Amino acid sequence: MPFVGMAFRGLATHPEPDEEARVTDHPAQERAMRRALALAVRARGETSPNPVVGCVVLDAAGEVAGEGYHAYAGGPHAEVVALREAAGRARGGTLVVTLEPCDHQGRTGPCTLAVIDAGVARVVYAVADPDPVAGGGARRLAEAGIEVEGGLLAAEAELANAEWLTRTRLNRPHVTWKFAATLDGRSAAADGTSRWITGPEARHDVHELRARCDAIVVGAGTVLADDPRLTVRGVQRHDHLLTSRRPLRVVVDGRARTPLTSRILDDEAPTLIAVGEDADTTALETRTAVVRLPRGDGGLDLAALLAELRDRQIVSVLLEGGPTLAGGFLAAGLVDRVVAYLAPTLLGAGPAALGPAGVGTLAEARHLRIEDITRIGPDLRVTAVPQAAETPTRPVAARREN
Amino acid sequence: MPFVGMAFRGLATHPEPDEEARVTDHPAQERAMRRALALAVRARGETSPNPVVGCVVLDAAGEVAGEGYHAYAGGPHAEVVALREAAGRARGGTLVVTLEPCDHQGRTGPCTLAVIDAGVARVVYAVADPDPVAGGGARRLAEAGIEVEGGLLAAEAELANAEWLTRTRLNRPHVTWKFAATLDGRSAAADGTSRWITGPEARHDVHELRARCDAIVVGAGTVLADDPRLTVRGVQRHDHLLTSRRPLRVVVDGRARTPLTSRILDDEAPTLIAVGEDADTTALETRTAVVRLPRGDGGLDLAALLAELRDRQIVSVLLEGGPTLAGGFLAAGLVDRVVAYLAPTLLGAGPAALGPAGVGTLAEARHLRIEDITRIGPDLRVTAVPQAAETPTRPVAARREN
Repeated sequence: MPFVGMAFRGLATHPEPDEEARVTDHPAQERAMRRALALAVRARGETSPNPVVGCVVLDAAGEVAGEGYHAYAGGPHAEVVALREAAGRARGGTLVVTLEPCDHQGRTGPCTLAVIDAGVARVVYAVADPDPVAGGGARRLAEAGIEVEGGLLAAEAELANAEWLTRTRLNRPHVTWKFAATLDGRSAAADGTSRWITGPEARHDVHELRARCDAIVVGAGTVLADDPRLTVRGVQRHDHLLTSRRPLRVVVDGRARTPLTSRILDDEAPTLIAVGEDADTTALETRTAVVRLPRGDGGLDLAALLAELRDRQIVSVLLEGGPTLAGGFLAAGLVDRVVAYLAPTLLGAGPAALGPAGVGTLAEARHLRIEDITRIGPDLRVTAVPQAAETPTRPVAARREN
Repeated sequence: MPFVGMAFRGLATHPEPDEEARVTDHPAQERAMRRALALAVRARGETSPNPVVGCVVLDAAGEVAGEGYHAYAGGPHAEVVALREAAGRARGGTLVVTLEPCDHQGRTGPCTLAVIDAGVARVVYAVADPDPVAGGGARRLAEAGIEVEGGLLAAEAELANAEWLTRTRLNRPHVTWKFAATLDGRSAAADGTSRWITGPEARHDVHELRARCDAIVVGAGTVLADDPRLTVRGVQRHDHLLTSRRPLRVVVDGRARTPLTSRILDDEAPTLIAVGEDADTTALETRTAVVRLPRGDGGLDLAALLAELRDRQIVSVLLEGGPTLAGGFLAAGLVDRVVAYLAPTLLGAGPAALGPAGVGTLAEARHLRIEDITRIGPDLRVTAVPQAAETPTRPVAARREN
């Protein structure tokens, strides 16, 4: 990404830095931040409910003295790992980290304390910590006399932590809606056949998506029609130990229609059935966890569902269908990312991938911004973000670019 | 494109060349062919009903001695332009050309004669001329003692001349179906609003498509709903004179419903209305050309329409809608290329981009191969080719790759 996409945001307690000068003056810091980002994303899908964080410590001469990342929830924070490796060379140096250092005693001590103790002269971070409890680290560091700067490669760092930042800022899980369709938008043929619209490479890619999320959500119609397992299969991590991931399987099932013989009720992963307050769940409750939710527009209250999942430590949700449920999430403004697998195939008939989403006329269309396009085998994967769901820092970056 | 995609096809009258050796032995010839292709496509959309052709003449030492391309129908052929520039340096040299030299006295003399007269020792061409009248040039050259080889960069050359090759091989115009849709496959919102699904950049790109075709075809429903002009607007050529292009506007209008007040009947471009044999065209015929066609499955006989257009010297057709007509062309196997403009937008309701295309179950789906993906402003342009419509030379190249 060229410098154009970069946003420097000085802290309110510091004078606004000269952005152009920063970028050209500190190529070593930008290199270090790119390395920190690469380290951070190594643990994608492994740190929930924590963010992914990477850190590089430069010594006073600007040489790399230590690096680290947050590998799993409960493990040491990235700053602590990097400072440990840097040891005495951290003194007078620069700590470059993808997320504002925490100022909070959790399962591990506050990072701000470790940073101050190590005697670093300067801290550069990408994204501010929006957590009301753990945030405020930058101010604490500045009060201790450390030069602090935020916003370096903020857009890239936002992307790496999109799920956690959404959960923290909006106090609900981040929702990725995934669908597979033909180039003309059909998710099945006229007779209902839908296996398989996309090729094996795309279907494998879906398992990669599943492996990185905390919960997989489908509607009861999908369970009745396809009887899916919704487990993670065939996914490996190449560069580090694979934490065994078994995302929670969630069925939105207002009238408790999920058959007791469904594969989703097997022992491969935990399952939660969300039903209406009046549903009869006598049989279901002998087999799996059930939660009762109020009814919303045309179905269960999806915001209540997400609140319930948040309370169960769910940070990221993969919404896998069907069209009615996806339309409900979109209509409620509860989709944060769309991943479309488009097969180079035409059907000309059959159900659409997306059902009613509260859009009656073109002016009300849900606009997305394409984030990535990748060819997956013979198919196409389009990743896009609803424009209304842009994170609060993005408009700042965009304004700077103009 | 790497060497993998390259197909060498020796002529039957010559021993099969050692493909690997050719590629590595003659980098100058491959460079010359790439240059010849770049020259050829300069005239895309300007040469109809002729093909685009580029030519580079290398002297005996392998240096570029002359180059040229076929700029407009009736103008000198590429070989003649390049040989003229090379003059005496062509003797003992190599002529590299994107299409087998013609052996036919048309508006200009046969190129084979010019090549033989120039005393070139070797001819390398990309694609054989399938025309029963003009073809056979390679054999004529070989009989004159010239070393001849075909197939260098054949796949690229096929692509550059797709329209003309299809017309010549199948004896009907090449058909590109263009559509604009949302990511969920809608071509309009629930209330019918469709202006505009895509952004101005994509709409401009459609005018580039129009400028390169000979005829634009729509259904009467599109004329009644949108009253389009179907003219080429805002398109410029940067590197050479723009021939004024006014593609024939064609309405498929079985019952002659096109209103006399339609914009399509203005004087901006010629218009042809294709009606059923029993349609009342008394009023229409006072305003524009009308052709009567037999009825086929669910509408006019589209193969008969294409035969009619072929007889009017139409090589390339741009099919612009609507969903019913597009489904008819697809069902009849008469679509050679699909250009989809996908807006990063979701509607969840509204008409689909493609109507019934004779596909009842997934196994009957029309499979395409993606040829190109380009971001056009905020939108996505996907260019794909029906797998059944692959040209006869492609399976050869594919087999060689394995």
